[in-house]
Order: sequence, then structure tokens, then C-alpha cells
Amino acid sequence: MNVHDLLRELREPNDTKIVLLVADGLGGLPMEPGGKTELESARTPNLDACVREGVCGLSIPVLPGITPGSGPGHLGLFGYDPLQYRIGRGILEALGINFPVGDRDVAIRGNFCTVDSSGVISDRRAGRPATERCVAVCRLLQQIHIPNVEIFIEPVREHRFVLVLRGDELGDAVNDTDPQLTGHKPLEAHGADPASENTARIANQFIAAAARVLKDEAPTNMVTLRGFARYPKVQRMQEVYGVRPVAIAVYPMYKGLARLVGMDVPEAGATIADQVATLRKLWEQYDFFFMHYKYTDSTGEDGNFAAKVEMIERLDAEVAPIRALNPDVLIVTGDHSTPSKLRSHSWHPVPVLLWAATCRPDPVTEFGESYCLHGGLGQIQALHLLPLALAHANRLGKYGA
Amino acid sequence: MNVHDLLRELREPNDTKIVLLVADGLGGLPMEPGGKTELESARTPNLDACVREGVCGLSIPVLPGITPGSGPGHLGLFGYDPLQYRIGRGILEALGINFPVGDRDVAIRGNFCTVDSSGVISDRRAGRPATERCVAVCRLLQQIHIPNVEIFIEPVREHRFVLVLRGDELGDAVNDTDPQLTGHKPLEAHGADPASENTARIANQFIAAAARVLKDEAPTNMVTLRGFARYPKVQRMQEVYGVRPVAIAVYPMYKGLARLVGMDVPEAGATIADQVATLRKLWEQYDFFFMHYKYTDSTGEDGNFAAKVEMIERLDAEVAPIRALNPDVLIVTGDHSTPSKLRSHSWHPVPVLLWAATCRPDPVTEFGESYCLHGGLGQIQALHLLPLALAHANRLGKYGA
Repeated sequence: MNVHDLLRELREPNDTKIVLLVADGLGGLPMEPGGKTELESARTPNLDACVREGVCGLSIPVLPGITPGSGPGHLGLFGYDPLQYRIGRGILEALGINFPVGDRDVAIRGNFCTVDSSGVISDRRAGRPATERCVAVCRLLQQIHIPNVEIFIEPVREHRFVLVLRGDELGDAVNDTDPQLTGHKPLEAHGADPASENTARIANQFIAAAARVLKDEAPTNMVTLRGFARYPKVQRMQEVYGVRPVAIAVYPMYKGLARLVGMDVPEAGATIADQVATLRKLWEQYDFFFMHYKYTDSTGEDGNFAAKVEMIERLDAEVAPIRALNPDVLIVTGDHSTPSKLRSHSWHPVPVLLWAATCRPDPVTEFGESYCLHGGLGQIQALHLLPLALAHANRLGKYGA
Repeated sequence: MNVHDLLRELREPNDTKIVLLVADGLGGLPMEPGGKTELESARTPNLDACVREGVCGLSIPVLPGITPGSGPGHLGLFGYDPLQYRIGRGILEALGINFPVGDRDVAIRGNFCTVDSSGVISDRRAGRPATERCVAVCRLLQQIHIPNVEIFIEPVREHRFVLVLRGDELGDAVNDTDPQLTGHKPLEAHGADPASENTARIANQFIAAAARVLKDEAPTNMVTLRGFARYPKVQRMQEVYGVRPVAIAVYPMYKGLARLVGMDVPEAGATIADQVATLRKLWEQYDFFFMHYKYTDSTGEDGNFAAKVEMIERLDAEVAPIRALNPDVLIVTGDHSTPSKLRSHSWHPVPVLLWAATCRPDPVTEFGESYCLHGGLGQIQALHLLPLALAHANRLGKYGA
């Protein structure tokens, strides 16, 4: 039996409030053997207070050894099996620039590249043009028209853009046209089924038109297309869990992921303090609050251990005003680990704390990877956190008599 | 691969003996922050001795956050996936009064209700009649005859009775006729497939006949029907595990659940001491013994922390004579938690101990929720306990060469 079907059956109405605070890339590693992680190094009196009253553990975003991107990482925290719900790269790219993808759309990631006079690719990224150049060349592509389909071109940055095809009967089982190697011509698009053949035919017309429009624009004189993807069919959190969810996020991709599962996505402000102010303002209107904090991930990606520690301490300072709102359940965790030592996302389990009045005590008194090993949640798959939150919020009935 | 298929393939004959001692609702919570749970508060020298020699952990009955009823809770402990094997409410109700449900039966929970002169329900529970009254009105319903079907009516208590329809081609995909609200007429029964349409037609005839028979019996002058259910098809423990299983239980529902998986269910006596005497008497005849102890759950449901502690201590006293029989494997756990603080079943993991000569040592020396966090079993889904018992009983061969 599908867990969502089970939850839909068991859910009960209640006014209780759940806050899911996601510190992106929270988990880390020590820089030296015997050292501490970023979270263990940070002074976090407010998080530690939650830990002492709540229950801790380590969250496995997808499966042991699997490093998630932001999409699967967040879907898991929202209680959606990231192996069941797959979000194509084109969709993620579109969400990342806040493009309102719809049901009739196929979203595609485009790259500008350089081809020689025989059409062979000499640079797959067109010399990484400045983003202003990307914007200007996209404007040229926006002149392209193809019958029976609406075309949207949006610059992302450098050599990257988003192409959205809007029409009827458009499938997304289409190969990437990027040959992944220089010295080859772009591949032709092919569809694996009739609807995807429609998409492939349009994509090939688009590529041919782009070649004409861009022929004097070297090094950005050609395009490749990747990650053809339709908007995934996802049950809304409202229907599955019976909550009124809202996302309080700054960056477009996280807003897009939240919108995908049915969250409202109002303007949240630019800083975590703004986000907490937004939370306060929306407190009566909603009962499930997803707050996204980016800087634990970006400092980790920069390999800046000290900056990540500082970002964690800044986040900790905002935990007090969140607690002051008296949520019934507060979960603090990350969507994945981003150890400064690795300068990238990683597969390591992510520290998680769950605070509620109905937590069974565990011996953990500080928030940190090695302390969480002794926590009452044990090592838990991320997608089980949301049902636990609903249980502690007294929003689930008994299964079976 | 299905775990039962695997076990059926690996099982090996042996004379070893396994005791599964289920303290219903064993897991708990402290009443106050910093306090101890019921089990941690109880003096349990005999259980603690098992813990020191055995291995401990926490059992997750269904999934994190899911609170099980007795049915799913016990199925898990018997090694049956409670999400795969679902037991309808009608069947549980019939099991609860020891009605011998068979393959051609549809079991249904009936409620007496009160309707006004226009047939609209004014009290869904008919003023909760005394059980003697329920028995008397059931006797009136027993006069009803419908062609081609046998009808059994058994009183439960107050407004509740069990209706069993026995016949051929009877499905159970039939809606409840209880509208769940007063001010409405009872709903008509409808079947979702041809066999269930047969059942629905008979149910509607029964309801019409009941209305006639009961018309002068206000407030018990009408019935509603809920939880239409056939007996689930379940492989017997004998076939899957190769054991000769027996249940030593006092209450009908647990006897019924045991019968469902193929256990013999002899008369066990009324007290836990009687049950241990029965165990001793049956020791040579069987090799898998399920003992059910109810009072840890009922005291928890009453919110009586001190009484639950006392019931745990009484159970502990009976562990010594059980150990004296020299079982090869002894498991002590619960089917779910019933914290006195919550006065209800809960989703919290349940302490479990497994004693056998082949346990790998762990550091746990006392039986209790927080101690079990450090146990060698970790946090384990309940349905994995039975294969572990078989392994420690030397009843499973190697998987693959």
C-alpha cells in the first residue's frame, strides 16, 4: 500500500501548526580527522534547547550512498518518495527561474554552443558568455515562431537558457541533442512515442530556426537541448495530508518545488529575519510552514567552513522567534549534506531534530551529526519525517481497529 | 521478493521453541519532562536479566508516525506486513466476540439507532442501550430470513452487534449505510462489483426487514451497517514458517487474530498465571507460543500510569517461570505503544527484547524505551522480528550458496 493513500485515509482535521525549517545542505564533515563538523562547531543555544526537549536523528534523503539534488532532497522532506516522483531537469531549470510551468508545457534546458562552418561543435558552452550576452541572444531566439505551438525562451545565466514548448499532445520522451563531446554535430531529436514525436519534430524545427537566427552570432551560434520534461503529476499536500501549506522561501527553485506540491508561495523578503517576519504575518492563515534557508548550502559549496558555521549561528538566532509563535511541531533539518570539505552536495545523512510536546525523551543535548547518532529517531528516511510531524500534530487517526 | 516466499524457501525443521510474549500497548512516555516511562519506572528484575543476556531495540509497528490498531499491530508481530494484509472492521468485530468466521462469510458491524416517523436518524447509537437490551433486540433480528443466504446476528454490547451473511458469491465492496450524521436517513447499500451487489441487495433486504421487526422498539427501532468485510486470505504460519503455533490469550479479539494466521487457540484461563500454567501444559505439543497480556494496554488507555507500572511488574514476575521452561527464543515486546499520558494507542516505537543463546551482546542492562535506543536490534520494523526469532531458533537455512 502506498503511504500517501494510507495518510489520505488516516488524516484528521486539526488546527495544530507544523514548521519545517530546512537549512539547505546542513550536514557536514570535519575538515581534519578528529575535528568537528560545521554544525558541531557552531554555537546554537536555541537549536540545542529544542534538541533537549525534542527528539533527534539522522535523515537519509534518498537511500544510503545517494547524493540528492535539491529536487529529490526537498520532495523527500515534503513526504514524497523521491524515487517515485522524478522531476526532469527542464522542469527544475524552469522552476529555478520562476517560470510558471503549466500542464500543456514541455520544459527544456537549452545551452548555447559554438559550431564551425560544417556544423560540428567546437565549444559545448560557447565560451561561457556573460549573462548579459545570454539575455541578448535569447532575445533573438524569441523571434522564432512555429505553427501550433507557443514558444517561451528565458535566459538563465552564461550559456544556459530555458525553452518551454506549450501545446497539445506534447510528450517528453525525447533524447538530449547535446552529443556531450566536441567534434560532433548536435544530435537530432527523436520521440519515443507519438506525443513525444510531436515534441521532437517541433524541437528540430526550433533548432533549425535557431541556427539561421544565430549564424552571425559566434561563439553563441548554435543551441543544444537537454532534459525534455513535462510537469510531473503530483498530489497536492492539501489532499494528501489535509494541511494548508505555505512556503517561505527566497530562491525561485525552492519556491517552484513548493508550488509543485501545492504550497502557496507568497513574497517572503530577502533575509531569514524577513522570512521569520513573514512567518509571523501568515501564522493564522496556514498550518504547515516550509521555511527554506539557502546559505548553509552555498557556503558549503564554496568550501568555506567558517562561513557555514556563521550561517548556522545566524539561523540559530532566528529559532527563538519561531519558537515564540508556539508551533505544535518544529522540524529542523537539511535536504542533504553539503560538507565544506567536499565543496558539494553529499550522500551523508543529515542531522534532524523534531520538537513537539509528545516526543519521547532521548539523551541528545546538542545539535550535531555525531550527537544525533544517539537520537530517538535513529537513522530515518527523510520521507518518513512528514508522517511523524502529522502524528505529533495530532492529525492522524489509528490504522486498523 | 516477498519475505514470506523467502522464508518458505529457507525454513528448516527443528524442535526448538519460540515464545512471543506480547504486552499489549507496552511502550509509553514520561508524564513530565525529564521523567521516566512506565516501563522505565517498573521494577523488572526478570526482564532485565533477559535484556542483559539478550539483545534489545525498538520496534516500529507499521511505519514511523502510524498508530496501529490491535489488528495491524499483531499481524506485524506475527511477521505479516500490516500494509499488505488488511483486516476489515466487520471481521475484527466478529473475531472480538469469538464468532467463527468462514470463507463464505461477509462480516458486518451493526449499530442500533433511533429514527423518527419519517425515517430520519435522531440518535446514531439509540441512546446507548444496556447490553441486555441489545441482546433482546438481537433476538428479534434473528427472526429475519432471506432466501439463499444464512444470517447470523450476535450482540456485542450497548448499541453494537455483528451481522454475518453466509452464502455464495458475496463480495465486501459495499458502502457503510451509517450516514455518520443525525438528521439524515440511513444510506442504501451499493456494491462496487457484481459479487458485492449481491451483498448489497441482501443488506438492503435485511435493513427493510429490520425496520419492520423493530418498528415498536424505539429507541432501538432501526439499524445501520458498517465495515462489510470478508475473511482475508492469509497463509498459515505453519506453511510459511514451519512452526506449530498456539495462542495463549484471554480476550477474543487476540484469539481471533491468532486463529487468522493458523494458530490453535485453546482455553487459556483468566489470569497471566493461568496462561503460564497453560503454556507449561502445552509445552511439548507446540513450538511457537504467542502469549497475549492485555493489562498494559488497558491501564494505559485509562491514563493510569501507576497501574500500568504495576501491570508491568506483575508480568515481570511471570517471566521467571517462562524462562524456567527453557525456550530457545523469547521475545518480549508490545503490538504498539499506549502511553498513559496520551490515554490511547500511539505511533511511538515499542521496546523489544530478544533472548536467545546466539544473541550478540549489546550494552543494554535494563528494559526501557531510552535504554533500548542503544540496543543491538536498533529500530526495526515489527515484521522483521519473526524471521529473527526463526534464525535464533536455528530454523532458517542459508539464502543462496
